[in-house]
Amino acid sequence: MKILVIGGTGTIGKKVAGLLKPNHELVIAGSKSGDIQVDITNRDSISKMFKSLGKLDAVVITTGSVHFAPLAKMDTAAFQIGLNSKLMGQVNVVLEGISYLRDGGSFTLTSGILNHDPIVAGSSAAMVNGAIDGFVTGAAIELERGLRINVVSPTMLTESEPTYGPFFAGFKSVPALDVAKAFVKSVEGKQTGQIYRVGYNL
Amino acid sequence: MKILVIGGTGTIGKKVAGLLKPNHELVIAGSKSGDIQVDITNRDSISKMFKSLGKLDAVVITTGSVHFAPLAKMDTAAFQIGLNSKLMGQVNVVLEGISYLRDGGSFTLTSGILNHDPIVAGSSAAMVNGAIDGFVTGAAIELERGLRINVVSPTMLTESEPTYGPFFAGFKSVPALDVAKAFVKSVEGKQTGQIYRVGYNL
Repeated sequence: MKILVIGGTGTIGKKVAGLLKPNHELVIAGSKSGDIQVDITNRDSISKMFKSLGKLDAVVITTGSVHFAPLAKMDTAAFQIGLNSKLMGQVNVVLEGISYLRDGGSFTLTSGILNHDPIVAGSSAAMVNGAIDGFVTGAAIELERGLRINVVSPTMLTESEPTYGPFFAGFKSVPALDVAKAFVKSVEGKQTGQIYRVGYNL
Repeated sequence: MKILVIGGTGTIGKKVAGLLKPNHELVIAGSKSGDIQVDITNRDSISKMFKSLGKLDAVVITTGSVHFAPLAKMDTAAFQIGLNSKLMGQVNVVLEGISYLRDGGSFTLTSGILNHDPIVAGSSAAMVNGAIDGFVTGAAIELERGLRINVVSPTMLTESEPTYGPFFAGFKSVPALDVAKAFVKSVEGKQTGQIYRVGYNL
């Protein structure tokens, strides 16, 4: 398969690419690094990327920003960061990418645990994760030509624990490699409309 | 209690108001009707409403728009309708309203079933419902002074069946009065961070 991994230079994306590489032709997209550059908050940038790549069998997205701050310090603009990037960035990749996917091809998005297991300063992440999970659930039944869409919702990564651990008190972390396996399941399997909850301890 | 019901002239809102009225002082807000007018897509309008009302014990929101269309016809702007109205409209009511709620006061928002049980043309509703549920889950643990927040997630209303029934093939509907009871539970009870799923048949 020819697979586009957007965010393929990040902590999860690198592991996904590592697992897929032996059996597939990969294109790694990043905001600054990778084989091709894309700004997922800019629909023209997404459109240009797909035009330059031609037909694909799978699109994996492991990127997107959200603003973390205490609720008392969150305003409309702060929520808009996550809505524009992690949410609509990924959704716009899907909307633009549909016509480039070959029959049976797949999208795999990334959300996260915080809409199920919230933390302080995580209200925007909880909002955006819930939105992505909902979108995937809704979009899956409408895609045509056997196209599929799933989302991977990981808990805190073991690799992120030194930096983010204090914000995730008592959370059991999961190695990025385990998260990457859920992306492989989505790409190489046949499931659709799934929310793969990885490393949840609920 | 002094309770603001935003959308109190709608199908659900009228039933909520009917149940609360015998025991509480109500202010009904609507976009055009009611005791006070508010445009929830405009943060200044929300701010002006709260300033004119002073201290409150509960805020109930039973309004907000989402665009329904087949996924193939949804673009960024179409998704933005629901993000600006049903999602950020309700969230901005919370952000503006916090300082007007008395200790122990509550917010009760409205989402819906479609992020769990999707229909064709409902990808934006699924996104927005998931976002609201996630926001409420995240915000509940951060509110101070005993403030509470819950969301009511109803299936199709029996009252809406003549109009929307064909889009909800095989869904069992729920009378608006049953949905209204979940709002009363949120307002008069002590729970927080709850997603009240009303009439689900899953």
